Amino acid sequence: MSTSTSRADDFLVSALTTISAETEDPDFFLKERFATASYRVDEVPLESLTAWQVNDRLVHSSGRFFTVEGLSVRTNFGPTPQWSQPIIVQPDIGILGILVKKINGVYHFLMQVKMEPGNTSLVQYAATVQATQSNYQRIHGGRPTPYLEYFLKGTRRRILVDRLLSEHASWYLHKRNRNMVVEIPPDDEVPESDDFTWLTLGQLRRQLALGNVNMNARTVLACISYAVAGDLRVNRLTAADEFHAQAIASHNLERSDVDLAAAMTWLIDQKEVFTLDVRRIGLPDMSEWIFDGGSIRHRDGRYFRIIGLSVEATSREVGTWSQPMLEPVPGNLVAFICQRQSGVLRILTQAMVQPGTTDRLELAPTIQIAPGFCRDSRDLPPLVEYLTSPISRVRLDSVQSEDGGRFHRADTKHLVLEIPEDHHIEAPDNYRWMTLGLLGRLMRSGYYVNVEARSLMACLL
Amino acid sequence: MSTSTSRADDFLVSALTTISAETEDPDFFLKERFATASYRVDEVPLESLTAWQVNDRLVHSSGRFFTVEGLSVRTNFGPTPQWSQPIIVQPDIGILGILVKKINGVYHFLMQVKMEPGNTSLVQYAATVQATQSNYQRIHGGRPTPYLEYFLKGTRRRILVDRLLSEHASWYLHKRNRNMVVEIPPDDEVPESDDFTWLTLGQLRRQLALGNVNMNARTVLACISYAVAGDLRVNRLTAADEFHAQAIASHNLERSDVDLAAAMTWLIDQKEVFTLDVRRIGLPDMSEWIFDGGSIRHRDGRYFRIIGLSVEATSREVGTWSQPMLEPVPGNLVAFICQRQSGVLRILTQAMVQPGTTDRLELAPTIQIAPGFCRDSRDLPPLVEYLTSPISRVRLDSVQSEDGGRFHRADTKHLVLEIPEDHHIEAPDNYRWMTLGLLGRLMRSGYYVNVEARSLMACLL
Repeated sequence: MSTSTSRADDFLVSALTTISAETEDPDFFLKERFATASYRVDEVPLESLTAWQVNDRLVHSSGRFFTVEGLSVRTNFGPTPQWSQPIIVQPDIGILGILVKKINGVYHFLMQVKMEPGNTSLVQYAATVQATQSNYQRIHGGRPTPYLEYFLKGTRRRILVDRLLSEHASWYLHKRNRNMVVEIPPDDEVPESDDFTWLTLGQLRRQLALGNVNMNARTVLACISYAVAGDLRVNRLTAADEFHAQAIASHNLERSDVDLAAAMTWLIDQKEVFTLDVRRIGLPDMSEWIFDGGSIRHRDGRYFRIIGLSVEATSREVGTWSQPMLEPVPGNLVAFICQRQSGVLRILTQAMVQPGTTDRLELAPTIQIAPGFCRDSRDLPPLVEYLTSPISRVRLDSVQSEDGGRFHRADTKHLVLEIPEDHHIEAPDNYRWMTLGLLGRLMRSGYYVNVEARSLMACLL
Repeated sequence: MSTSTSRADDFLVSALTTISAETEDPDFFLKERFATASYRVDEVPLESLTAWQVNDRLVHSSGRFFTVEGLSVRTNFGPTPQWSQPIIVQPDIGILGILVKKINGVYHFLMQVKMEPGNTSLVQYAATVQATQSNYQRIHGGRPTPYLEYFLKGTRRRILVDRLLSEHASWYLHKRNRNMVVEIPPDDEVPESDDFTWLTLGQLRRQLALGNVNMNARTVLACISYAVAGDLRVNRLTAADEFHAQAIASHNLERSDVDLAAAMTWLIDQKEVFTLDVRRIGLPDMSEWIFDGGSIRHRDGRYFRIIGLSVEATSREVGTWSQPMLEPVPGNLVAFICQRQSGVLRILTQAMVQPGTTDRLELAPTIQIAPGFCRDSRDLPPLVEYLTSPISRVRLDSVQSEDGGRFHRADTKHLVLEIPEDHHIEAPDNYRWMTLGLLGRLMRSGYYVNVEARSLMACLL
């Protein structure tokens, strides 16, 4: 317990360190890599993807990577009781891992500059390792994954974080990845690689605010929790601002065993109320969807399209490849509504059913909108009126990308709004206020916080 | 934390109390109810079940209760890489709840004598409440469920245990139930009902050893953990015997946050190694299965049969009904191998994939055999040679029934074997030694310990 507290303190020190003598300017490092990387991305018809076949489902000739299948969904959550949609099935557990090392006494994170074909801003900071099993077992015959050996079993891993956590449950069926942070002793030499650099959490906070950190790195970073112990005092002078100081304090509040048990009971109550029944079906058995050889799309242009993408790049394991991608209807938005209540910063979360959720529902942002899933304004979720809050209440407003290895131009607006303490927010029964500390404890137990909420949590580090 | 420790101590006091002035003799109480209950159970053809239809799946005319469907399974766990089988789909979350109350300072559990049509010994001790949502919402128009109000949300529940836990994953798809223990203040009056009686944990231990406690009560009881704090000393004089004293001590050992994190990492390592891909299919699409109107059965008599049962009874919500049941090939066996290692009693558990598991695998007994799933001796799992251990190593040997509301004559032999400390046991990589305390912590987090292992844990209370 004391060990994890001291590590949590170490993370906090790193978060409050915004300049490091060790690293090149992170903005410049990224810009430089962007300039030297060469790539070209083109949409191509699905039927032209040489290694992929479409019949009952869309499948790679190796049988690996992932498939796109149909899913029939029934639920009493939300405005639509029944629909069918394509969904990505990828049962492999990928590794998302970040190496950390104390340099001059401060945790630095080994971040990789990575190109993902689907991203709007093509080059971003990624985790040290971001590899599907198909990837690192080199099914495609590509180059070995650097630093992978630090995260595999059978090695002497000094594990700070190790969680199996869900991915986008509107697009993936039961997908989860392994989120890891592994520490290297200060005196261990780590081989240097191009495109890799050591950043403090404080430096990463700035890159997060700029939208320069990819989805896979954000979900790992969201696992970090802070302690405030010993002689470390956080106030307006050490934290970036008053709200940041409140967020740091929130990591340490209402996270006892009793708080956790009460939250679990509330979540089970929600799982009794809401239903979810899904069934994998053939692509041709989906009602309302069209496949004409070029793409798979909804007849009214709703939800998303499955398209082909041809990619030429130098900064990835394989120089040239083509693959299917999911391209959502633009305009995704996630927002946390926060409030200081008797001195405690809490976040209003909701229990949300999504078709691909492993256990029916998880905690989601206060507001989570995918325009493709809304037919019109009647389908909008509760509390959307807060999206027009005055600028004085906006604590974060940035555009973040989803995983550019599967999703094409999937940008999500991230908002954090702080509502004044004297304002009462009327929310349905499946909404609940929680501290960041409580959300952190739930994340340690299993599939309780969805990836959209975790992405916002990373931005609050 | 202190609250839960003191409750754990209260549970221990109850476990060490084997006679209560409050209760009739539990053997006699059960025998008396058995004598007055009247019931008649007959196998009938599936197609004669008036409210059930078989087409693509077996379904009730209300669309509620449960369905029996086909499941196509692929896994790299065990000897068979691919098969199809019928599976029960019941997405409702049932409540398994026990009321406890301090009587003369000792926790007593309100147990119900219940008849289940599938059980070989038809009358058993059950939890206070054992109700599916279809049950307690009275889809079948039956009588209300007594004591249900103590377990529903919106009431002032004093919750000691509240866990969503998995059910039999070879027979159910993704099934889970809510396991609850709710305390009533000592001075609150609880209305008395026929067929209900207050028992201490010590009295329940005896009934467990006799096979008189049903599956649903066992999974709730398995959630109980002991603390040994304050002036309570457990030794050979207070505990039933030396092994019981060791088991009680094991509840309190190697259960820290660090131990839990290491166990979680080991479990994720296993989830990377083993695969599971399941797909719900139509009953007619199963290879190797026969449906001729009477039953659904494997062409070689393997696995189990789905049969119809007609029941007349007085001690259940509805006097007369008929329903489908799953009848396994007889001979199921579960066993824990235990060992005292440097003074710590540990249990050898295995990470096991079952087709209906929510998250690929859970911890299972050291040995778990369903003869229907074995073609011949080559299919037997590791360590079966220990089943012939001399009687001096046998700490428990009893026959326990599975849920008699779904399973017909599903009796499982339960064995606990203690292997001498100087004996080295060679087990594959997916086996790991754990204390009862660590298993208890894992059970608090989610779907980590399967129902077969929990049933054995209840017998070790």
